Amino acid sequence: MKKIYASIITIGDELLIGQVIDTNSSWIAQALNQAGILVKNRVAVGDNREDIWQALDDAISKTDLVLITGGLGPTADDITKPLLCDYFGGKMVMDQATLDHVTLIFERILKRPMIERNRLQAQVPDVCTVLKNEKGTAPGMLFTKQDTKIIAMPGVPHEMKWIMRNHVLPNIPHWYQTGFIEHRTLLTAGIGESFLAEKIKDFELALPPHIKLAYLPNYGMVRLRLSAWGMALEPLNETLDNLFNQLKNNVLDYLVTDKDDPMEVVVGQLLTNRQQTVATAESCTGGYIAHLLSKHAGSSVFFKGSIIAYANIIKEQLLNVPHETLMTVGAVSQDTVTQMVQAVLTTMNTDYAIAVSGIMGPGGATDEKAVGLVWIAVASKDRCIVKDFQFRFDRDRNIELTAINALNLLRGLIVDNS
Amino acid sequence: MKKIYASIITIGDELLIGQVIDTNSSWIAQALNQAGILVKNRVAVGDNREDIWQALDDAISKTDLVLITGGLGPTADDITKPLLCDYFGGKMVMDQATLDHVTLIFERILKRPMIERNRLQAQVPDVCTVLKNEKGTAPGMLFTKQDTKIIAMPGVPHEMKWIMRNHVLPNIPHWYQTGFIEHRTLLTAGIGESFLAEKIKDFELALPPHIKLAYLPNYGMVRLRLSAWGMALEPLNETLDNLFNQLKNNVLDYLVTDKDDPMEVVVGQLLTNRQQTVATAESCTGGYIAHLLSKHAGSSVFFKGSIIAYANIIKEQLLNVPHETLMTVGAVSQDTVTQMVQAVLTTMNTDYAIAVSGIMGPGGATDEKAVGLVWIAVASKDRCIVKDFQFRFDRDRNIELTAINALNLLRGLIVDNS
Repeated sequence: MKKIYASIITIGDELLIGQVIDTNSSWIAQALNQAGILVKNRVAVGDNREDIWQALDDAISKTDLVLITGGLGPTADDITKPLLCDYFGGKMVMDQATLDHVTLIFERILKRPMIERNRLQAQVPDVCTVLKNEKGTAPGMLFTKQDTKIIAMPGVPHEMKWIMRNHVLPNIPHWYQTGFIEHRTLLTAGIGESFLAEKIKDFELALPPHIKLAYLPNYGMVRLRLSAWGMALEPLNETLDNLFNQLKNNVLDYLVTDKDDPMEVVVGQLLTNRQQTVATAESCTGGYIAHLLSKHAGSSVFFKGSIIAYANIIKEQLLNVPHETLMTVGAVSQDTVTQMVQAVLTTMNTDYAIAVSGIMGPGGATDEKAVGLVWIAVASKDRCIVKDFQFRFDRDRNIELTAINALNLLRGLIVDNS
Repeated sequence: MKKIYASIITIGDELLIGQVIDTNSSWIAQALNQAGILVKNRVAVGDNREDIWQALDDAISKTDLVLITGGLGPTADDITKPLLCDYFGGKMVMDQATLDHVTLIFERILKRPMIERNRLQAQVPDVCTVLKNEKGTAPGMLFTKQDTKIIAMPGVPHEMKWIMRNHVLPNIPHWYQTGFIEHRTLLTAGIGESFLAEKIKDFELALPPHIKLAYLPNYGMVRLRLSAWGMALEPLNETLDNLFNQLKNNVLDYLVTDKDDPMEVVVGQLLTNRQQTVATAESCTGGYIAHLLSKHAGSSVFFKGSIIAYANIIKEQLLNVPHETLMTVGAVSQDTVTQMVQAVLTTMNTDYAIAVSGIMGPGGATDEKAVGLVWIAVASKDRCIVKDFQFRFDRDRNIELTAINALNLLRGLIVDNS
């Protein structure tokens, strides 16, 4: 029984100059984990023959499965396909099935004439198995070397995912005798990483060697993850569930959720289970809380809407914040968010509401109010909690923190109310 | 004159199971590029001694500068510091300046008693130069081996950035005789990658060898980037500007911007320059367009606010969409978005408004309306453009595409109006 390891190689100069953030790798890693395969490493290299070649040598010598994304497009900077052809000692041939598919895409969907450059997308090395790409013109390719399988896919996320779902993941049980990888994750709030570590020191020391504990701190919240690998699923899950319960009991006072869900999903599920609704009145977050609440499928059940009052005049007109209040204590104040939350609760006729107003930076500070000062109000029909925060980060992070803390305050209110 | 190369090593199991997306690497890569250093590769490895050791060997043998993030925290899964101590043959010693700093953080900011685990954060290998971390308790560390400099930093983004800005980037001119790396990027819309490539084929073939052209397609928009490396900045910029102008002229009909800015920044700058304002009325995007418009500093100049009408009742009550319209042609229709855009334009009293309503999926489709159908309206006081789109992706991507296309429609309207 051996562990099956994979490497991920992402190709593209844009990854090395920081022009794009690589989201493919984490998706692939998650999918492989679920299929029982451990990821050994992830490498990003440029559109450079020598570097890609070297990365292939390394990956093939170290792991059982190599997943490559990028460099399969129709333009001159896409060099992955000819390189793979050379690397595996093949020659390029036209693949009729791919050509038919590409032709169809141009006729039926793009409704444009196909040019030679598009036709060449259907050429593949004769030493690969073609993996049909229903979602685009560049096919996936499967190669084998020294018992390692190497799969090349386009970098376009939904094309890569389609190939993974249809050609890679379903075949893993046929290709390898994998074990099982299981994770359990919980989220805590209100306790720092080092204090959490002290609290669960004995638990951590007593963990069996095949179970790993990881700390994932993220600005006032810490995620704890137990990971395990084993050949038999049932005993693995039994051990893990038992330990996870111990862990939960150790941190009960700080527990937000015992699932690997983001805060807005935790709030959404509480509301869905209670058949209750929420609305937001946002100034400094400019719609970000509404976006978080609505981005997951099923949100129309509990999210009714928002008033984004970025300008003060909108706070007056749509949220009835008195002009007097804005002139005296200002938009970033207890009075303002209290009025905002009551107004939106009434206007939207929801069970709960969130209101936020703050200074996200870099500008906007005054003598009395620093960048990062935020007032947050959450309310139900009969309760209202108002709290101020002082964040010390950059604009993006201040917006993120305002949203997460607002949602966490609401979570507390919902749980208390039931 | 030789090119200076860097490697980036990110450490953490969370990167290999796909639990977090690595945003540090792209920030570091951008910063290094601006300092004249090319990134050779990026590697992510787990909290595993052997793999980190191997990654260090590789990186040091290949590049002049190695930047490491992660694994410097106070918990048992953080193994980077002792490993680096062994790797560079040192022993751990207490660093008084760091200890004073950590003590101060606990006394003044966290206002909690410090525990032994926190005190140990101030221990460092005696073979490193300590790089003070003003933003946290784990200091940065600088090592040297075979003319390569190796710098370890915490993975917390704002701590890493502080160390980069204060200890790394300002010293690069003292450490290396770097050349200059310059990029020029433009964004096109409405033309596919392969057709774009045909259009600029002659331009591309005539490029001098030290200038590289890259295509970055992203769902109906393609970014084109020219990159160059040289020892003298002035002639480099002259050549690059000249070629970039040629490139722009080649794609003028499709040009959105000749800067490396996202769409919402392009729109925001048009509005700022014209001293005009915008508001949004959003259904299916649930506040995402408002978030994009407000996330960048300076947005309060042009963004007044939004009405997020996720539930139909809110469309009726706050945007005056007739009940009749919602019952007959439905919320995802030309009539609904036309009414929404007019209502929000009036309510918010802005120069421009955006309204969107669509089916983002996976649920919500009807016999007549498929997932991905979106109606978008953009309007000024005297013009209104309404258009339907049929996207074919998943929920996240459909939301993203709706926002980008809505902003692009507005961009067209603003440019036409002036």
